[in-house]
Amino acid sequence: MALTRKGQATRERILDAATELIAQHGVAGTSTEDVRKAAGVGGSQLYHYFDSKQALIRAVITRQAEAPLVPGQPVMGALDSFDALQAWADAAIENQEHHGGRGECSLTTLAGELGPTDEQTREDLCNAFGRWQSLLHDGLGAMRERGDLRPEADLDELSLALLTALQGGSLLSQTLRTADPMRASLTAALAYVRSFGA
Amino acid sequence: MALTRKGQATRERILDAATELIAQHGVAGTSTEDVRKAAGVGGSQLYHYFDSKQALIRAVITRQAEAPLVPGQPVMGALDSFDALQAWADAAIENQEHHGGRGECSLTTLAGELGPTDEQTREDLCNAFGRWQSLLHDGLGAMRERGDLRPEADLDELSLALLTALQGGSLLSQTLRTADPMRASLTAALAYVRSFGA
Repeated sequence: MALTRKGQATRERILDAATELIAQHGVAGTSTEDVRKAAGVGGSQLYHYFDSKQALIRAVITRQAEAPLVPGQPVMGALDSFDALQAWADAAIENQEHHGGRGECSLTTLAGELGPTDEQTREDLCNAFGRWQSLLHDGLGAMRERGDLRPEADLDELSLALLTALQGGSLLSQTLRTADPMRASLTAALAYVRSFGA
Repeated sequence: MALTRKGQATRERILDAATELIAQHGVAGTSTEDVRKAAGVGGSQLYHYFDSKQALIRAVITRQAEAPLVPGQPVMGALDSFDALQAWADAAIENQEHHGGRGECSLTTLAGELGPTDEQTREDLCNAFGRWQSLLHDGLGAMRERGDLRPEADLDELSLALLTALQGGSLLSQTLRTADPMRASLTAALAYVRSFGA
């Protein structure tokens, strides 16, 4: 279904509201009625765009996968140098500091809550994490090609180390409400990447 | 309320069932009726031990906090040498491999699902993570005292780096259903700890 520009804006407004509510209250704590109210749209309008809560959640995941790796940041350049990776880590830590540890990564919440339960949603989450991993993988690949990283650097391992650090940091920072876990996790992962420096 | 030995065994059976169901289906996907059936107890019996679903969940968290850091492992010795830390990491990776990435850490699921929502549960989770962090902190402290780690090793940072690696690895392994994220996260975190070796 092709949407008009106005329709597209309404759909985005609904997704914005759903993303924020899920990050704050989890999927189970968010009803379509909450989303409808927060977005300021009528019930029939919401169901015009998303015919079920599950369709809405899948759209949140898909859109989150296209977001830059750090919430609140504008478009992110290529992560293809130690400086760019450090800037990315600093932005993630600052995001947690700014929000008192309530950083807004709804994917972390979604993976914790839905990962084990719902097969279709799990596949969407795999695609989302896969897209983020490949952003890191591409940047590290460029660094290896350029000679910044030694040939034995394992791009799969290093990109996973950075992504798990971001997710583990996010999960603990969210629970403990301080940025310390995010800072420790990303410092360790980046140091590991640097240990393969040429 | 002091429990008889039989009462204690019934309570443990209920908690076993609840822990397993939550790890598999999340909190929202687990009803007290599911727990009652899986534990094979009557409804009035369940409410004798836990007067609400929330009381049951809090007891799951408290008990999980007392479990060894890697599910499925018997009592864990002190994590106070590089060998002991490596054995701990290997056990966590093997646990994920054995379960095809469906490792059974219900705390990861609980933190993802409830961390942002429920203040009392969040505090229980903080205590649980705090206890795990202090196990790591104690072990690393002994290593620094013995001279295995250099004096400038920051025990708070290193223990958080290991704990976030465990949680991030668990979250991603659970979603992607492979042990690769757990292996990458713990390899990176342990390498960071080793970089402070004397």
